Amino acid sequence: MRIAVVGLGLIGGSMAKSIKARTAHTVYGADLDRETLTMARMCGAMDAPLTEENLPQCDLVLVAICPGAAIQWVTDHADKIAKSAILVDLCGVKRVVVEALAPIAAAHGFAYIGGHPMAGKERGGFTAATDDLYEGASMILTPDKRTDMQLLETLKDFFLDLGFAGLTFSDPAEHDRIIAFTSQLAHITSSAYVKSPEAQKRRGFSAGSFRDMTRVARLDENMWTELFLDNTDYLTAELDTLIHHLTEFSQALRARDPEQLRALLRQGREMKATAGGN
Amino acid sequence: MRIAVVGLGLIGGSMAKSIKARTAHTVYGADLDRETLTMARMCGAMDAPLTEENLPQCDLVLVAICPGAAIQWVTDHADKIAKSAILVDLCGVKRVVVEALAPIAAAHGFAYIGGHPMAGKERGGFTAATDDLYEGASMILTPDKRTDMQLLETLKDFFLDLGFAGLTFSDPAEHDRIIAFTSQLAHITSSAYVKSPEAQKRRGFSAGSFRDMTRVARLDENMWTELFLDNTDYLTAELDTLIHHLTEFSQALRARDPEQLRALLRQGREMKATAGGN
Repeated sequence: MRIAVVGLGLIGGSMAKSIKARTAHTVYGADLDRETLTMARMCGAMDAPLTEENLPQCDLVLVAICPGAAIQWVTDHADKIAKSAILVDLCGVKRVVVEALAPIAAAHGFAYIGGHPMAGKERGGFTAATDDLYEGASMILTPDKRTDMQLLETLKDFFLDLGFAGLTFSDPAEHDRIIAFTSQLAHITSSAYVKSPEAQKRRGFSAGSFRDMTRVARLDENMWTELFLDNTDYLTAELDTLIHHLTEFSQALRARDPEQLRALLRQGREMKATAGGN
Repeated sequence: MRIAVVGLGLIGGSMAKSIKARTAHTVYGADLDRETLTMARMCGAMDAPLTEENLPQCDLVLVAICPGAAIQWVTDHADKIAKSAILVDLCGVKRVVVEALAPIAAAHGFAYIGGHPMAGKERGGFTAATDDLYEGASMILTPDKRTDMQLLETLKDFFLDLGFAGLTFSDPAEHDRIIAFTSQLAHITSSAYVKSPEAQKRRGFSAGSFRDMTRVARLDENMWTELFLDNTDYLTAELDTLIHHLTEFSQALRARDPEQLRALLRQGREMKATAGGN
């Protein structure tokens, strides 16, 4: 296939690197940053820059930029995309993006499906991108009534070739609701956690739990602000739930109540056992 | 040296395994669980059980059980400990333990210093113990006016032999204040985080951030209840701080305020950069 990768940050850059390292597909890359484009060419992560001339030849278009920019890019380029092509956006929220892109795709006759690769790291940008980022990860897709099975089979083969463990299907609202908890809330908690003045004092007093708790505080505030604002309903509900459960601990500690503390911790242990994720 | 290891759980078991794997010292082990003692002998983590007969011959006594049990054990065995011996407790809180043990040691003439190895994992018990748990970790010690330099040199050589990266000195109150943030709050947050009903629904929607955020929710509720109750003052203050910072995010989200959200995230990123821990 000829594949356009729009945006060569951590997600798009890792797509490009994985495609070139693991398949025989051709990659045309686009990025606003010229240096990134040069690096991507030099390290073999793409075959050539994406242009007005080769975009119409692409069989697959992966859009790996922020939601607003993704909607804008597709709006601007829809008439250059072949009717036989499949477009997949890789944005971290799905309702706002799918609502905007599905009608554009329908109007122009190309296939569209929302996507979200469940992989990431605390460092962003092309230099952090790797050809093994997606190994063992799940690829979320949001098919709708227009999606045909042949397209899903094509995408399944493609994403498994990149190292993904499998596809997970969802609708945009379910995706956004779950991701508010599994990813967005984790980033907010990490950022809030590290703000204790204690974090700036002595080192040598921490082990794995502090490192894990604060790892993703190192985030791109522009991207995450946009993702959070596209998901405020689900995200504020999850924040309320977390604050409620923290407050239960605070009350049990202030009451010096061992039975209640033990019950709260046991409940968490049992819920972790059935929640998975190690 | 002849070394007594009292308690062969994750911490004491890893001490015994590290000593036998990395040094020529003799280990006498004690544990309430007979099966653990048998396992420890069979896998070479100790030379013999600790007895009333060999305790007086020990040069170093490591007490790796919960605070209340540690105080009770030392109270019961103080008259069997040689005046030339060094006793180090490995409890996760230091004020309550040091206040109880320092006078007993002074009265009986043996040296005592509080300790806390900065290493752990979400699984406990002897079977989770390993001979590399302490590799690269820092060993916190709480020396006082009675502590002599020769003793610290002996302990430094000993702990470096086990793989520790170095010693960190503190007083019990500073230790408890910092640990409330770097370790105890992380365990509470992890436990609170996983209690969202969302955690029990579909899988396939999570990557590293969810795993890291909830890893230590798998904890021993009896041990942590005791550790938390010995540190309620510092711990409730840290919980208040975290809830405050989470509430700031909640307010900015509800106001749909991109500038405030960006500022809150930037502040977290900058504080993470100077806080260390990856």
